[in-house]
Amino acid sequence: MQLFYNPDFNIQAPFLLEDEARHCLKVLRIKKGDIVHVTDGNGNIFETRLLTEDPKKCQLQIISTQTESYKPYTIHIAIAPTKNADRTEWMVEKCVELGVDEISFIACEHSERKFFKTDRVEKIAIAAMKQSLKSRLPAIHEIISYKKFIEQPLPEQRFIAHLEEGKRELLQQLAQQGKEYCVLIGPEGDFSPEEIRLAQAKGFLAVSLGESRLRTETAGIVACHILNLINSR
Amino acid sequence: MQLFYNPDFNIQAPFLLEDEARHCLKVLRIKKGDIVHVTDGNGNIFETRLLTEDPKKCQLQIISTQTESYKPYTIHIAIAPTKNADRTEWMVEKCVELGVDEISFIACEHSERKFFKTDRVEKIAIAAMKQSLKSRLPAIHEIISYKKFIEQPLPEQRFIAHLEEGKRELLQQLAQQGKEYCVLIGPEGDFSPEEIRLAQAKGFLAVSLGESRLRTETAGIVACHILNLINSR
Repeated sequence: MQLFYNPDFNIQAPFLLEDEARHCLKVLRIKKGDIVHVTDGNGNIFETRLLTEDPKKCQLQIISTQTESYKPYTIHIAIAPTKNADRTEWMVEKCVELGVDEISFIACEHSERKFFKTDRVEKIAIAAMKQSLKSRLPAIHEIISYKKFIEQPLPEQRFIAHLEEGKRELLQQLAQQGKEYCVLIGPEGDFSPEEIRLAQAKGFLAVSLGESRLRTETAGIVACHILNLINSR
Repeated sequence: MQLFYNPDFNIQAPFLLEDEARHCLKVLRIKKGDIVHVTDGNGNIFETRLLTEDPKKCQLQIISTQTESYKPYTIHIAIAPTKNADRTEWMVEKCVELGVDEISFIACEHSERKFFKTDRVEKIAIAAMKQSLKSRLPAIHEIISYKKFIEQPLPEQRFIAHLEEGKRELLQQLAQQGKEYCVLIGPEGDFSPEEIRLAQAKGFLAVSLGESRLRTETAGIVACHILNLINSR
């Protein structure tokens, strides 16, 4: 099944956006009368029939609508973008495949990249949502400073995966099923001692993601996977 | 800590291989008398002192040796290489970071890529081993046909993550702690019904990696992560 995306999908006048319509008609050679599935990225998947083969105004007729119920938990990954942007883009793609609700980018004291454009990762998130047949597009937030980020209202289950010396519980041991989670993932050079203190003052629990020394983007994926796993028990 | 690799590390006459020596001396500017850590990729990490600043014959003096004990479990991922080789390379890097013992490449009926050179992924595995400070280099096997692969002697805990209709147990529910595991991951077009029958005849248990529809390379990483997780409980 091929899933198309139209964030402004209008059930009164349903159509495909021009670039998606072009792909649908020219690449996939979908014809008038064929079935087309479209998501609004907001929990709905519409089964429709193609009415017009015009890429400029590719009209559809809704056959049925499936609304995905909300998961009993939400995952928010807040991560320092990697020096090599590809690695962060991979991380976004994989988190969307695994299931993530929000991704925030944070500029930390040891960040090698304090600026990060989200337009590319937004496209990647849309492609991953379509490819993995999901109907909800995760929220992707512009980069902000670490301090600003942790000042925000955040869920009860909040964790910081820092690498400082000392014993830490595993994320899968501290995270409870069916909650809202936020996990902070630091830059290549880890969080600074002050950042770790600030997080702990804000009630972030220090967690380990396992024995292996993971790259930043791998830590993001692993945290996202662990939180999905404990909820699929 | 920076880890160097010399598969032929000789405790009688320890030295760095030329390309690693060049990196050590020219890039990292390590000087005579400085400490250098080297692994043989076979479970040993040697703490050494640099004796000669000559890249052609960069001699070392062993200070101490750490031998990593074997994990009580082994993970063997057998996967169909993706059409886009980058995705497979990325999967290899992540599996090495997470901890994997063997990676095999299999040519399946629906494989879009039936040939796959392993030289690049071997380099990637070495880099990932060094980067994640591991002392054992996973075995990476040349691509063989699916049928040849499952004819081989394989561990008791063997699984196939196919996508055919029907209820399947989750890998984390079927895999027991402290065992040798082998997981088959199919190509973009999934295993063929015949391949699935053959695997089941060979005692492979069909498993699900979760509710999300995952790309091939993501499935490889997820299987590897799940098996590491159930052993870190």
